[in-house]
Amino acid sequence: MAGSTYGSMFRVTTWGESHGQGIGAIIDGCPAGLALNEEAIQVFLDRRRPGQTKYTTQRNEADAVQILSGVFEGRTTGTPISLAVMNTNQISRDYSEIAGYYRPGHADYTYDAKYGFRDYRGGGRSSGRETIGRVAAGAIASSILKDLGITVCAYTKSIGNVSIDYAKCNKDNILTSPFYMPDMEASAAAEILMQEKMKELNSVGGVIECIISGVPAGIGEPVFDKLDANLGKAILSIGAVKAIEFGSGFQAAEKTGMENNDPFLYTDNGKVTKLSNHAGGILGGISDGSEIVFRAAVKPTASIASTQRTINKAGENININIKGRHDPVIVPRAVVVVEAMAAITLVDMLFMSMTSKMDSIVKFFQKE
Amino acid sequence: MAGSTYGSMFRVTTWGESHGQGIGAIIDGCPAGLALNEEAIQVFLDRRRPGQTKYTTQRNEADAVQILSGVFEGRTTGTPISLAVMNTNQISRDYSEIAGYYRPGHADYTYDAKYGFRDYRGGGRSSGRETIGRVAAGAIASSILKDLGITVCAYTKSIGNVSIDYAKCNKDNILTSPFYMPDMEASAAAEILMQEKMKELNSVGGVIECIISGVPAGIGEPVFDKLDANLGKAILSIGAVKAIEFGSGFQAAEKTGMENNDPFLYTDNGKVTKLSNHAGGILGGISDGSEIVFRAAVKPTASIASTQRTINKAGENININIKGRHDPVIVPRAVVVVEAMAAITLVDMLFMSMTSKMDSIVKFFQKE
Amino acid sequence: MAGSTYGSMFRVTTWGESHGQGIGAIIDGCPAGLALNEEAIQVFLDRRRPGQTKYTTQRNEADAVQILSGVFEGRTTGTPISLAVMNTNQISRDYSEIAGYYRPGHADYTYDAKYGFRDYRGGGRSSGRETIGRVAAGAIASSILKDLGITVCAYTKSIGNVSIDYAKCNKDNILTSPFYMPDMEASAAAEILMQEKMKELNSVGGVIECIISGVPAGIGEPVFDKLDANLGKAILSIGAVKAIEFGSGFQAAEKTGMENNDPFLYTDNGKVTKLSNHAGGILGGISDGSEIVFRAAVKPTASIASTQRTINKAGENININIKGRHDPVIVPRAVVVVEAMAAITLVDMLFMSMTSKMDSIVKFFQKE
Amino acid sequence: MAGSTYGSMFRVTTWGESHGQGIGAIIDGCPAGLALNEEAIQVFLDRRRPGQTKYTTQRNEADAVQILSGVFEGRTTGTPISLAVMNTNQISRDYSEIAGYYRPGHADYTYDAKYGFRDYRGGGRSSGRETIGRVAAGAIASSILKDLGITVCAYTKSIGNVSIDYAKCNKDNILTSPFYMPDMEASAAAEILMQEKMKELNSVGGVIECIISGVPAGIGEPVFDKLDANLGKAILSIGAVKAIEFGSGFQAAEKTGMENNDPFLYTDNGKVTKLSNHAGGILGGISDGSEIVFRAAVKPTASIASTQRTINKAGENININIKGRHDPVIVPRAVVVVEAMAAITLVDMLFMSMTSKMDSIVKFFQKE
Repeated sequence: MAGSTYGSMFRVTTWGESHGQGIGAIIDGCPAGLALNEEAIQVFLDRRRPGQTKYTTQRNEADAVQILSGVFEGRTTGTPISLAVMNTNQISRDYSEIAGYYRPGHADYTYDAKYGFRDYRGGGRSSGRETIGRVAAGAIASSILKDLGITVCAYTKSIGNVSIDYAKCNKDNILTSPFYMPDMEASAAAEILMQEKMKELNSVGGVIECIISGVPAGIGEPVFDKLDANLGKAILSIGAVKAIEFGSGFQAAEKTGMENNDPFLYTDNGKVTKLSNHAGGILGGISDGSEIVFRAAVKPTASIASTQRTINKAGENININIKGRHDPVIVPRAVVVVEAMAAITLVDMLFMSMTSKMDSIVKFFQKE
Repeated sequence: MAGSTYGSMFRVTTWGESHGQGIGAIIDGCPAGLALNEEAIQVFLDRRRPGQTKYTTQRNEADAVQILSGVFEGRTTGTPISLAVMNTNQISRDYSEIAGYYRPGHADYTYDAKYGFRDYRGGGRSSGRETIGRVAAGAIASSILKDLGITVCAYTKSIGNVSIDYAKCNKDNILTSPFYMPDMEASAAAEILMQEKMKELNSVGGVIECIISGVPAGIGEPVFDKLDANLGKAILSIGAVKAIEFGSGFQAAEKTGMENNDPFLYTDNGKVTKLSNHAGGILGGISDGSEIVFRAAVKPTASIASTQRTINKAGENININIKGRHDPVIVPRAVVVVEAMAAITLVDMLFMSMTSKMDSIVKFFQKE
Repeated sequence: MAGSTYGSMFRVTTWGESHGQGIGAIIDGCPAGLALNEEAIQVFLDRRRPGQTKYTTQRNEADAVQILSGVFEGRTTGTPISLAVMNTNQISRDYSEIAGYYRPGHADYTYDAKYGFRDYRGGGRSSGRETIGRVAAGAIASSILKDLGITVCAYTKSIGNVSIDYAKCNKDNILTSPFYMPDMEASAAAEILMQEKMKELNSVGGVIECIISGVPAGIGEPVFDKLDANLGKAILSIGAVKAIEFGSGFQAAEKTGMENNDPFLYTDNGKVTKLSNHAGGILGGISDGSEIVFRAAVKPTASIASTQRTINKAGENININIKGRHDPVIVPRAVVVVEAMAAITLVDMLFMSMTSKMDSIVKFFQKE
Repeated sequence: MAGSTYGSMFRVTTWGESHGQGIGAIIDGCPAGLALNEEAIQVFLDRRRPGQTKYTTQRNEADAVQILSGVFEGRTTGTPISLAVMNTNQISRDYSEIAGYYRPGHADYTYDAKYGFRDYRGGGRSSGRETIGRVAAGAIASSILKDLGITVCAYTKSIGNVSIDYAKCNKDNILTSPFYMPDMEASAAAEILMQEKMKELNSVGGVIECIISGVPAGIGEPVFDKLDANLGKAILSIGAVKAIEFGSGFQAAEKTGMENNDPFLYTDNGKVTKLSNHAGGILGGISDGSEIVFRAAVKPTASIASTQRTINKAGENININIKGRHDPVIVPRAVVVVEAMAAITLVDMLFMSMTSKMDSIVKFFQKE
């Protein structure tokens, strides 16, 4: 299977390694007639680009995207959109040391176990640079969602033990905070935490929250392709993500049914709403018209400069100090990746849902 | 897409509604030559059967499985295995009341939004009875895993705020405890909690933990079909599950890299091991040879007898009291469902991994 | 993979062996709200039922279909439709002889090579009875197509060297002719041929032609999922089919571009039409609004009573005489199978095509 | 769905238009450890390159392939292989004329019907240049097959009414003949035919035959994913192919069972063989160990310089003369495309077959 394709109707295939020729994505199933240019995609890529603040790696990667196919006269043609970001900043330094041992928390050992050998330069295919393809594809998905009145908004909920206070949040802060936190006080506290951990040659994790607004009720497929199941897969497929929860999530396990059930209510103008949203906008795997809410846990960066114990391929237990420029916290750069994967999943499931009702299908083909 | 098929190489398709003719599953991709009979599957189904203790619904469903195809002379033939459990206990009571309103926490409203109408009898396709097909398929997957030296063991970690103490756990307790808890003290405390909540006409949630042992390093596909991403989808597709975490999970978000990284170590006989397992046995989406560990949050049963606010199809805000026999806690019956979905996913991904290395493929066909 | 599932959006999974408990199909992705009952499916199944004329096997199989799920109050619910035909006429005769050797033209040897052993009773999974599931699913697909104004009409073009004369054809004859031939003169000639070959303990092949009317222009996906490629796969997956051609087919290879190109023309009322239809209604893998036309070659029945050379599992070259009741010609019973597979493929590709244009998608969701 | 991905285990996704930035393919599922470089792929691409003889278009396209990912130190890594051929010879001539009308035999009209507009430059995505991605991927598949002892050999069987005589064939001629015909006398006759048709500003079709040797018995999945069904889809997805037949193909329809059945026979050294191969090496959709044989009909080039009737987008019936450099016969350049698609399909189905038997799977993982 190999696993580099995601989605059924809106299908994304990514390729590329950290230190190869480049990174790219093919988007197959993008409808024809969508306005698209490189600038729109670049805006998303710039949000994951390193070197933006001192809390991300100081590598300077331009990561300029090219559209190689599928767009004609400024609009998508319905055929595969090939996007590529060629690698330009890959220093040809000596990787012989890293080639010989297995970094803790990384995929070095598991790739060797699976494939017999690996492209060890910068993590190869398991590098965070792989997400460039996801973000580029996510930019296109977001553009489709925008035309359908749907917005996906992700931000940092916590860095280490520093969490946002919803009372102090403002969405306008997200792009201002170096951590993409909507609460500037929390963001400032996170800066202090980061400086401390960077001094210790250590790294920090955090939690990303994502809110999707404007999704009509009825999106999601019963049983295996539930909207939360597919969003879960999409988000857990991001390298450093170790957990995901929807609505009240793990807290639901400690609640009673009386506390956790969300009563339905008609608004004064007859719209269906709910008095609470512990469900996170999904009931039985299908959107209920409320905001879709989930949170993802991001582990601390595995590459740290402190001394660590590990093994080498020669059969020895050794100590290592990982060199190079690494993000002391991966969370901020992962925010746009979460947004991208959520957008891709939503487009895919919106498209799937178009065949739910026979009368809608008949109307669709009559209109044509 | 419709969503009732799961898996690529080992593919499970389920069908059936709570109050229809029956529930079933087709397993396509089961290798030929596996010993299989109805008794082996029934053992798994009996673990999710209601009426076992006073903490599950008192409905008495035999849920006897039949093998309709794919097995000849006691062994699988490699062709689709059709399993069916015919419904026998469906009382033809009056469902006109439930047909008219939307139960909080259930899929009534979202199914109507998606499909225009729904089979309202007992929840139809969104009923927990749908998991019969999963468990039956999981029994077959477990049998394959057993032949490969792999075991999947799920149990209840907590009921409401009552959690197990690992120091007091014993795997032998799992099938003894009415909640499938390995710690009998916690199990007793949970009984007290349940009795209290049942008196209140309320319900309780909980957490299920799952340990998979014996998986060789190298299973899982990079990027989108990571082992944790696919396990995540599988588990989140179970009706009442709202969250999943691997290894240290949400706690990883509060840790530093020094704390969270698992140092590799050679054992005295040269085997690769890790000093800790915060990763939950998966690095870069690929198994690392350690135990795979995950936890899933199960929400409290949505069907409660207490008065609840909701809406009806006539456009009115109303109060309801749900009648009928419902589980005051869904967690214990979901344990075997978690085990089933994990087993199915693992078989699927073990099969995928067989084409990772060219030299293994050459050897495979030479041997044939 | 295992291969018993067909389709992406409208997905059919079949199960069952000739002499097992039964044969069935799961249809996942059927839209909600389609009127459906067992009678409508039975009409299709009866067209493939044996014992209708003396040119088909004299086995008397009722083949009564049951709907086990997915239909509520006479309409589909959008969830999987489980269809089953239980086996009732399977005589428990002695199969030990056939178990020991490999019949020429059958899958006995290849199943043993693939799986290590086989269900040898009546051909097991490779029996023509497997098509019951396809035909049942095809009945549902045909019902969807009818609501969309599309008809699929298959008939026998030739039996052995006896071909229909288009000048003498009348569609009303199709169900009258024992061979489903629209030309009654050719049908009579085929009867004479059949009687001769039956006396010789021999069998005959033939060609099935299929015309699909009412398909709008624009159905089919470029490159790999061309409408003709997917129809080709669907038809070639029917057991005895050895070839397929679209439009002028193999004759196109002997034509020039001037002869083979179909000039476009506007009709007086401004509709796009073509002066000829050598393309068979498909250009670049996408429907052009003309009738879709294809032909499939069906091989002569492999099971013949004449003496044949073959091998046994004991390593010996032997002579055999196959016993039992077999169709002297498979073509007439395959006509409805061709129709079913074409209908399933068309529904699947119509559904895929709903996301071709961004503006149609926006309109679809606005309307909702 | 969009249709630009083919295969399940060995998965090829292509992108690119005739006059866009380039053409490419992503191969996901190629096992690690296969020796691979650009030269090996270029050899295949050069066989489809135009300008090789006067019977192909005189455009001079270098079509130089680049490997952008998935190969490290001369071996595949198991991760996606991204291949690209950048367009260099696309003259920016005026396409406004072709933009306004629909060429007979082309996909201009159907793309507009499907997508609302099209990239009209040189046919856009429906151009024959799209096959560059297939051939590049096929080169990799062929390399895998070679390591498994399997060879795929395609050649031209006929050009118009000029057919090869098997008695005069020699495989060494294939690359010598300008038409890839193994019979040099037929090749010479085809040259005379072509010169005549080129003078008439006309074009010619033909038949390609393909022989696959070395496939073990047991490859192919029952029911829908039969080896012939999947090969059929693969070959019919090639632009100009209108028909495919396996073994005796359409001739089987005129034969009797006695004539068409292939008797099995043990050779003196106990190997299973057949006295004839009317089945074309496939029984019940599964390889029987004989040579796999199929033929594909290729239509005459649709682009001809002679005057043709057609319509324009302004609603008028018009006459056109297509300008530009076009192949007077597409058959020779399609030979390597047929070989590529057959190789890709075979690798995919070989990989699928690895999970057919439980004991082989157990052995595989024990060995690991």
